[in-house]
Amino acid sequence: MTQSTTTLFRSYLIEEYHLTEEPYYVPVADEVELFEAAYQQRIPLIFKGPTGCGKTRFVEYMSYRLAQPLVTIACHEDLTASDLVGRYLLEGDSTVWIDGPLSRAVKAGGICYLDEIVEARKDTTVLIHPLTDHRRILPVEKRGELLEAADGFLLILSYNPGYQSALKDLKHSTRQRFVSIEFDYPPRDIEAEIIQHESGCSDDDATQLAMLGEKVRNLREHGLGEGASTRLLIYAGKLMSQGIPHRRACQVAVNWAVTDDHAVQRSIEEIIASIFE
Amino acid sequence: MTQSTTTLFRSYLIEEYHLTEEPYYVPVADEVELFEAAYQQRIPLIFKGPTGCGKTRFVEYMSYRLAQPLVTIACHEDLTASDLVGRYLLEGDSTVWIDGPLSRAVKAGGICYLDEIVEARKDTTVLIHPLTDHRRILPVEKRGELLEAADGFLLILSYNPGYQSALKDLKHSTRQRFVSIEFDYPPRDIEAEIIQHESGCSDDDATQLAMLGEKVRNLREHGLGEGASTRLLIYAGKLMSQGIPHRRACQVAVNWAVTDDHAVQRSIEEIIASIFE
Amino acid sequence: MTQSTTTLFRSYLIEEYHLTEEPYYVPVADEVELFEAAYQQRIPLIFKGPTGCGKTRFVEYMSYRLAQPLVTIACHEDLTASDLVGRYLLEGDSTVWIDGPLSRAVKAGGICYLDEIVEARKDTTVLIHPLTDHRRILPVEKRGELLEAADGFLLILSYNPGYQSALKDLKHSTRQRFVSIEFDYPPRDIEAEIIQHESGCSDDDATQLAMLGEKVRNLREHGLGEGASTRLLIYAGKLMSQGIPHRRACQVAVNWAVTDDHAVQRSIEEIIASIFE
Amino acid sequence: MTQSTTTLFRSYLIEEYHLTEEPYYVPVADEVELFEAAYQQRIPLIFKGPTGCGKTRFVEYMSYRLAQPLVTIACHEDLTASDLVGRYLLEGDSTVWIDGPLSRAVKAGGICYLDEIVEARKDTTVLIHPLTDHRRILPVEKRGELLEAADGFLLILSYNPGYQSALKDLKHSTRQRFVSIEFDYPPRDIEAEIIQHESGCSDDDATQLAMLGEKVRNLREHGLGEGASTRLLIYAGKLMSQGIPHRRACQVAVNWAVTDDHAVQRSIEEIIASIFE
Amino acid sequence: MTQSTTTLFRSYLIEEYHLTEEPYYVPVADEVELFEAAYQQRIPLIFKGPTGCGKTRFVEYMSYRLAQPLVTIACHEDLTASDLVGRYLLEGDSTVWIDGPLSRAVKAGGICYLDEIVEARKDTTVLIHPLTDHRRILPVEKRGELLEAADGFLLILSYNPGYQSALKDLKHSTRQRFVSIEFDYPPRDIEAEIIQHESGCSDDDATQLAMLGEKVRNLREHGLGEGASTRLLIYAGKLMSQGIPHRRACQVAVNWAVTDDHAVQRSIEEIIASIFE
Amino acid sequence: MTQSTTTLFRSYLIEEYHLTEEPYYVPVADEVELFEAAYQQRIPLIFKGPTGCGKTRFVEYMSYRLAQPLVTIACHEDLTASDLVGRYLLEGDSTVWIDGPLSRAVKAGGICYLDEIVEARKDTTVLIHPLTDHRRILPVEKRGELLEAADGFLLILSYNPGYQSALKDLKHSTRQRFVSIEFDYPPRDIEAEIIQHESGCSDDDATQLAMLGEKVRNLREHGLGEGASTRLLIYAGKLMSQGIPHRRACQVAVNWAVTDDHAVQRSIEEIIASIFE
Repeated sequence: MTQSTTTLFRSYLIEEYHLTEEPYYVPVADEVELFEAAYQQRIPLIFKGPTGCGKTRFVEYMSYRLAQPLVTIACHEDLTASDLVGRYLLEGDSTVWIDGPLSRAVKAGGICYLDEIVEARKDTTVLIHPLTDHRRILPVEKRGELLEAADGFLLILSYNPGYQSALKDLKHSTRQRFVSIEFDYPPRDIEAEIIQHESGCSDDDATQLAMLGEKVRNLREHGLGEGASTRLLIYAGKLMSQGIPHRRACQVAVNWAVTDDHAVQRSIEEIIASIFE
Repeated sequence: MTQSTTTLFRSYLIEEYHLTEEPYYVPVADEVELFEAAYQQRIPLIFKGPTGCGKTRFVEYMSYRLAQPLVTIACHEDLTASDLVGRYLLEGDSTVWIDGPLSRAVKAGGICYLDEIVEARKDTTVLIHPLTDHRRILPVEKRGELLEAADGFLLILSYNPGYQSALKDLKHSTRQRFVSIEFDYPPRDIEAEIIQHESGCSDDDATQLAMLGEKVRNLREHGLGEGASTRLLIYAGKLMSQGIPHRRACQVAVNWAVTDDHAVQRSIEEIIASIFE
Repeated sequence: MTQSTTTLFRSYLIEEYHLTEEPYYVPVADEVELFEAAYQQRIPLIFKGPTGCGKTRFVEYMSYRLAQPLVTIACHEDLTASDLVGRYLLEGDSTVWIDGPLSRAVKAGGICYLDEIVEARKDTTVLIHPLTDHRRILPVEKRGELLEAADGFLLILSYNPGYQSALKDLKHSTRQRFVSIEFDYPPRDIEAEIIQHESGCSDDDATQLAMLGEKVRNLREHGLGEGASTRLLIYAGKLMSQGIPHRRACQVAVNWAVTDDHAVQRSIEEIIASIFE
Repeated sequence: MTQSTTTLFRSYLIEEYHLTEEPYYVPVADEVELFEAAYQQRIPLIFKGPTGCGKTRFVEYMSYRLAQPLVTIACHEDLTASDLVGRYLLEGDSTVWIDGPLSRAVKAGGICYLDEIVEARKDTTVLIHPLTDHRRILPVEKRGELLEAADGFLLILSYNPGYQSALKDLKHSTRQRFVSIEFDYPPRDIEAEIIQHESGCSDDDATQLAMLGEKVRNLREHGLGEGASTRLLIYAGKLMSQGIPHRRACQVAVNWAVTDDHAVQRSIEEIIASIFE
Repeated sequence: MTQSTTTLFRSYLIEEYHLTEEPYYVPVADEVELFEAAYQQRIPLIFKGPTGCGKTRFVEYMSYRLAQPLVTIACHEDLTASDLVGRYLLEGDSTVWIDGPLSRAVKAGGICYLDEIVEARKDTTVLIHPLTDHRRILPVEKRGELLEAADGFLLILSYNPGYQSALKDLKHSTRQRFVSIEFDYPPRDIEAEIIQHESGCSDDDATQLAMLGEKVRNLREHGLGEGASTRLLIYAGKLMSQGIPHRRACQVAVNWAVTDDHAVQRSIEEIIASIFE
Repeated sequence: MTQSTTTLFRSYLIEEYHLTEEPYYVPVADEVELFEAAYQQRIPLIFKGPTGCGKTRFVEYMSYRLAQPLVTIACHEDLTASDLVGRYLLEGDSTVWIDGPLSRAVKAGGICYLDEIVEARKDTTVLIHPLTDHRRILPVEKRGELLEAADGFLLILSYNPGYQSALKDLKHSTRQRFVSIEFDYPPRDIEAEIIQHESGCSDDDATQLAMLGEKVRNLREHGLGEGASTRLLIYAGKLMSQGIPHRRACQVAVNWAVTDDHAVQRSIEEIIASIFE
């Protein structure tokens, strides 16, 4: 089999990224109302919850709903303050200041989503404090400037308390600057609806995959680090749509994806076999 | 719902930041008199106290009252001496010296507030020693210079002894260069007054939120890392003003904001239920 | 003995590396069908398995079969985000942006194979997350840009769960973005076929080498870190073709290559002696 | 209350810093004679002693007395050899060598005071070795040069053995290059004289503050890290001169300044109450 | 005594270093045949063995015998990938690419000897993997290029398993890409021949030194870290040729050179005394 | 008392540093003959021994005696390979290569003394290996060059086995490239002669100081880290010459200089009192 490829790619300015069509999102509780109330008061938010439970999709949905640009920044331990705020770069024989993604969001005024904030270095975390004050400023020390955020700007953090260790704690001086919303995996019927919509598999397969997700998550107290995300269930549905047998699809998209532990793999294999007989 | 945004932002020079209207501050004891006496003698100060108890607001208030510019520097473990003092930057084909925020404050003569000093690297901490001497100088070694501080200059540090660990100790060679004022959360009636003023919620709600703050802080001996700050109580008041039900507002603005521990969350949930029946 | 050398070397652009002849690959199960189904849906893949069991060869084979360019990146703990995405370089008196290998693959649209992903620093690992989203974007923060991947682009990771330690864990936030295929050494008859084809040794020697591989791998529970790879068995076959005695060839290409432990070496020596009498 | 500020500041070249008026210093023993004998022989000196016991003031006094410029360098763990010796800086389109403070002192020939030497990195410590030899040279490796110190040059180190830990030991290869003078807090009558002179408080207050200092220092065996420095007692005197009540002045300038431990604070509170009834 | 010196020195391009006369090497087993067979097949090699047992001399000998240039790279924990592959350097107002020693060897096509590979950082180790594949390529990511090795190129690693610790393990993903030859000190008669040839001492002295080497190596199970290398025995022979008494020559060239432990030194002293009565 | 200062200083090129007058050195054993024999054969040397026992003075003496320039490099953990070998520096609009001190010595052909080699980073230590081979080359990888040492070049290392820890071990692959000479403090009569000559004190004082040195060194098994160096005894003699009382001179130049431990200080005080009654 060969496959022709389109080698065209597109690029955007970071702060001009708008979602052009409504992201598919099914609310579970009053999270939409809470977000809107906080946004009205410009109260920054923390989203807590496990991997793949829909936090990123929710922020995309709210960005579309509020018609705000969305700047997403994946935090990691090597992200420096300069990476966020900006730096001088030599360009030809003159030096040009390049705004980082946080400065871009502060100036453009959209939603700035710092994903997995506990991974960030302390300088990054401290940097955002004055943006959560009544002053809403970002110090750009290399330029000797203070930027006052545009009116529409709001800061959102995400983090996964399951990972939280003594070393990677979200300090109180940071967390007490935010209202916190806790998320979990959607209930079975909503998850089945999502799986069907996203993977194009049959309703029955979607329901069984949602059931599989629920049962695998129950293994979390029995040696499984983290439950299967909705995303993995969707992958399984997509492979089924491509004609991969049900159990094999679940094996590679769910079982082998969530663990390397052979004992846990056998337990999940049994769950798969009991659902997809 | 959609929301129009103003994408205008403003920027200031760091050393020209003046508070243009009096910050709202309710004194708890003689802290205003102590600050003024120290300022008259140019004795540098340390503010000790928990997260969100009003230290930053107080320094803003005194800066307004003494009509001094205010330069705030959030300390973190990656802040270098060059970040504070300044550095050479290439600009076109010439090299320009850019003063850091500390040099700016030393020259302009205002109040320089180093927030969370124990987070700073040792080079930062040592750098400020000669500014607390009778000589009041800042060595700018990359320029081979000593800067003598302008007359109005005063150094203020903040730190939270609750965080203090063996590794992040404020050394005696530093702390014995400052007069220290200890802060705590305001008493219930003053805190209620602040909550009402800042959030626009009703007097009753403000009183109940102040009571909630007091009770949550009592949990500090029962597994809660740090008590709820006044800021979080104000957030709860603001969400109430937006029509979010009382208990839900307290859940996201206080309970989920201060802890990820489910047992502690249940205790706080009970406190909330007992206050907002 | 002397040997004349050709000192000519060739160089390619990284993203233009196409395999010009079909790599020799013998499928063990339905891995070709799984890869094609995932590629149709642009679901990113993880290949799990021990050193030298054929993962790299398989990705080369699929790249040839799908007529996609192949960009291979060997991960290590010093690989920075800039190494992957690109950097500015001074060239004469102007500054030029040089795309890193990941940006090249994103733009050119081929298969990007990140070998031994658990060795990578966290910033590298986090960087690839948005490429596995429905948005398929790569943030190029130094240019303030988002690159949307060309249609043919697909990300493949490899890792060896045998090495997995607490410190070098593939985090759930990463692994749950991929479908995972587990690999192991090929069964004896297929391995013999591979050895004979690659080394040019006799069929008998190839069969005996495959048997040796199988027996050495059984020592893994008896103090041997990892079993002998197919590659080492091929080396032994090649040395035999050059006239090196069978046992000596197995000693240097298999025994001394897999362990420094004298006790384990003695056990392997006995296995060699029992096969090549 | 408002306060007008003078925003004028002054700057000096580091090596041209001369004390223009005699620093106030009351000798405790034969330290002046010892310093002069060592200076005659150009024997480098180490000053050992607790925080704030007057080591810095003494070196300023001797610098004035010997009419030598004084270059003070606060050591810290991020101070590099280049920080001390000098570096090349781009200035416009030419590169300029900027001497560091140590090179400045070596050339200008004054007293060079390295404060808290045990905080320095090893490269800094090693760098000063050849300056303590009979050769008295400073290698400037980036220029391929050896600088021979001007005749008046002398190196003085300070360190606080109370801080000395296994990790931050002054190595014998360094300490055995210096004559060492041990300092302690001045006796009560001399300290009272100093407090009165520096703070402008009454003789009685000064005597009582000296007594307070003595008693607080006795707590060092009972959980207090380090005793109150003379500087803190002077601060208390200054606050008293500004009208702050005696006990409150001692609380913020001494008690809260030396410890965060509530039990120790209660003990000091009792000492204060017993002295300032 | 004075000594006139010739201050002339010579320099070579790294990749043009050819041995102009045959290095003195006495084969111990079939290592020459093994190397030639591996070279014919371009199978990369690892030389394992203790310090100073002749690995470097052997690679020099084979380089001469095969008439290949020899590029030697001493690995250490600060060796970066750029050190090996190359980097851009500003030269005047243009930027020039400087090939590192590995790129030079890949292009020139000789033998590249990475000495003490386990000392190298992971990025260095990973970098060489694709050079050991059937593709024999070196990625030069800063130029976006892949270099295909010239035909004569072959990679040789050395390492000393005696040093091997958990932290400095040669990973299976690396070691299983090489055929491994184990080396040890030469047998007594061959070693005596080498000592005599290299030091110019008498045959008797050479035989006694070889016996000394053997006996000292037996102390390895009694507190001696590593046995005396052939090189040290040659040094002792050279000092004897200069008229230094036999026992004194052995004391400084062997005993004090291999250990600082006084107890072990006494044992070696006794061995020396028993041989050189 | 005031003191006029000469602010003139002199500078030399590192490789042109010649001792112009014979250093004062009293041989203790056959170290001069050993050094000359090793130098004739160009065998590199290690000097082992405690701080301040005369190793540096000996290498200066031999450098004068052999009429070789002397390049001394103090090793420390931040010394990089570039510091030793050289680097490119921008100068105006052209880039200039600056040789490091090791390259200077290799080219100029003198004695290169690496002081306290165990402090050096591994890259430094490895760098010198090829200079101790029969090839005597220094790879200058940034220039793609190999430097062959001038004929007069010889490498000398010093280290203090008393400091040797598991972490800062001189590896066998390094130490077995050198002949090692062990040094200790000189015997009493020779030390008295040195003290008198260097300090200008009386013969009696010198004899008593030598006795003090001997007795203090005996405390090494009783809690003293390292014995008093000859240098400290000379300092005491110099202070005596300046009129400082004998016991006080010994207190500051010996007792306080070698230890901060009050118990050990009391023991040394008693020794001083028994000698200088």
